[in-house]
Amino acid sequence: MIPPRLIYKKGKLKVLDQRLLPHRVAYLTVRNAAQTAKAIKDMVLRGAPLIGCAAAWGFPLELRTRRPSSWKETLTLIKNAARIIKAARPTALALFYAADRMQEKAAAIIAGQKEFSPKKYRLLVRALEREAAKVTEEDRLACARMGALGADLLKKNSIVLTHCNAGALATMGIGTAVGVITEAHARDRIKHAYSSETRPYLQGARLTIWELQRSKVPSELITDNMAAHLMKTAGINAIIVGADRIAANGDTANKIGTYALAVLAGYHKIPFYVIAPTPTIDASLRTGEEIKIEERSSEEVTFINGRLVAPKGVRARHPGFDVTPAKLITAIVTEKGVIRPVNRASIKKQF
Amino acid sequence: MIPPRLIYKKGKLKVLDQRLLPHRVAYLTVRNAAQTAKAIKDMVLRGAPLIGCAAAWGFPLELRTRRPSSWKETLTLIKNAARIIKAARPTALALFYAADRMQEKAAAIIAGQKEFSPKKYRLLVRALEREAAKVTEEDRLACARMGALGADLLKKNSIVLTHCNAGALATMGIGTAVGVITEAHARDRIKHAYSSETRPYLQGARLTIWELQRSKVPSELITDNMAAHLMKTAGINAIIVGADRIAANGDTANKIGTYALAVLAGYHKIPFYVIAPTPTIDASLRTGEEIKIEERSSEEVTFINGRLVAPKGVRARHPGFDVTPAKLITAIVTEKGVIRPVNRASIKKQF
Repeated sequence: MIPPRLIYKKGKLKVLDQRLLPHRVAYLTVRNAAQTAKAIKDMVLRGAPLIGCAAAWGFPLELRTRRPSSWKETLTLIKNAARIIKAARPTALALFYAADRMQEKAAAIIAGQKEFSPKKYRLLVRALEREAAKVTEEDRLACARMGALGADLLKKNSIVLTHCNAGALATMGIGTAVGVITEAHARDRIKHAYSSETRPYLQGARLTIWELQRSKVPSELITDNMAAHLMKTAGINAIIVGADRIAANGDTANKIGTYALAVLAGYHKIPFYVIAPTPTIDASLRTGEEIKIEERSSEEVTFINGRLVAPKGVRARHPGFDVTPAKLITAIVTEKGVIRPVNRASIKKQF
Repeated sequence: MIPPRLIYKKGKLKVLDQRLLPHRVAYLTVRNAAQTAKAIKDMVLRGAPLIGCAAAWGFPLELRTRRPSSWKETLTLIKNAARIIKAARPTALALFYAADRMQEKAAAIIAGQKEFSPKKYRLLVRALEREAAKVTEEDRLACARMGALGADLLKKNSIVLTHCNAGALATMGIGTAVGVITEAHARDRIKHAYSSETRPYLQGARLTIWELQRSKVPSELITDNMAAHLMKTAGINAIIVGADRIAANGDTANKIGTYALAVLAGYHKIPFYVIAPTPTIDASLRTGEEIKIEERSSEEVTFINGRLVAPKGVRARHPGFDVTPAKLITAIVTEKGVIRPVNRASIKKQF
């Protein structure tokens, strides 16, 4: 239904070019760490879990292009690959999780070796390919589990709203937030789903509504600024979003506009659910205040389809993400269970 | 600085085509009531006060194209013109205010006549031209007065956010919300102004930021979904918007997205100001629940610059407006004074 997002085959990673969706299904091939990082940076692929999977593949890709002559040299190559990959985008923790995991895996294998040989190097590469495959398989399974746990939270005739694309296209599985919606739809619990278009990149308009169409979920597209009006007038009874990074206290960074939806949901007494696998949780951060928010280019706001929509010389802000405080989140659904940062009673008190 | 929005000259109304801004300044000429209504409907011109002014000109335009032979026939022509003009768009009260006023003016003049003659008919047309000129002049003066009263509410170093375009381009004067900002800027009270782009029509990106640039107000464009994040992080201390219709209790209909900003402003304890001339106040409506919200076409959401940004066959909602309850409005600034629907203390209690 949804085309494969990443296809790895010895030394080549074919990446579904999400910038062309929904009008064209085409793949871009990346062959090393720098190309992987560039594809992430340029948003050929996006979505925190998928970024993590691509990052993992970046390591065997890079090593396949190299012919080092020692383990020391190999470790330097891996370190450089990690540096390049981690510099691609700052907010999604999955990227750092995957890069660290691949680097540690390689280090552990190398630590168990004595003499260097090209054959042993090839075995290392294959082990890293298996590890990257494991990262993607874990993501697929996590999506399925979160879909089930999240769908449990929804009642029959749910009218839901999701933001950005936390769907199959953001993961290697059925998605996080959209996975919950499609799973709930399969259980006949969804009456209607709204997708906010998600300016400036229009992931909602281009990707999420396309996924919902393909899954035959009754759905409509809205502009981001319609959400409050529809919460008041259209009976929306759940907001379901993904996450890029979650601090230890439950504060959650996600696509710009998520925080607004959380405040609006609170005001309208609508439950607000975050769906994210555990590699999104950054226990090293006490609160969301410490999450680094990526500031992207002004042109991504002022140009649409290559055309300037604002006057020449205009300045635009472009924070890619915002932080939703835990107190506005009803529950965080992970593959390991449902976390309720604060109880519902205290949320009600805020409004 | 800002090009004239409407230029009337005997039987022709040149309308600045705001759909082409900011890239091109061009005029469309309308010559009768139907063309005036079409220009309003197609958003060649927009903004409640400006719609009212154009509607007023629609009457002398229509009468100039006609050669009736009785006052009875003349009254029928005027009635038909009013019907056509009032059907253009449903939400902005200024349209109905102007149409009713012109119709009443004509009826009063005709009631004072005995015999019909082509010469007396010409005198009627000229009287209606003077009345339409009066409607536009009143709007210009109201803008100046609201600018002064609104600027009084802002402190030095204000960081403000406005939505849609409630500027010179929406009026025959300096604008309503943007008029307040430019007047406060002239008094050196504006540190920074944010304009939200206002999907789907991008009036903020195309019109408001252009006006702010021309008035040399330090300003930045944002997407609609960034507002909450900037309220939290950028020190915004006033939200200033226009209005299309205000119910007797202060509930206010304005461009879609306004209600969200009001809720978000309340949550962040930021004053929320509505700037609108008294012809916006509809005393016949008890509350905002009774305001008719225009539902516009799905294509205006799914196409940007003539290109489909969503998958084929997608359904999109497109309410053109939303209603902000009076309890979320700090003050309504009219040309006759400042109305405070409810006192600030009670607003604070809501959050």
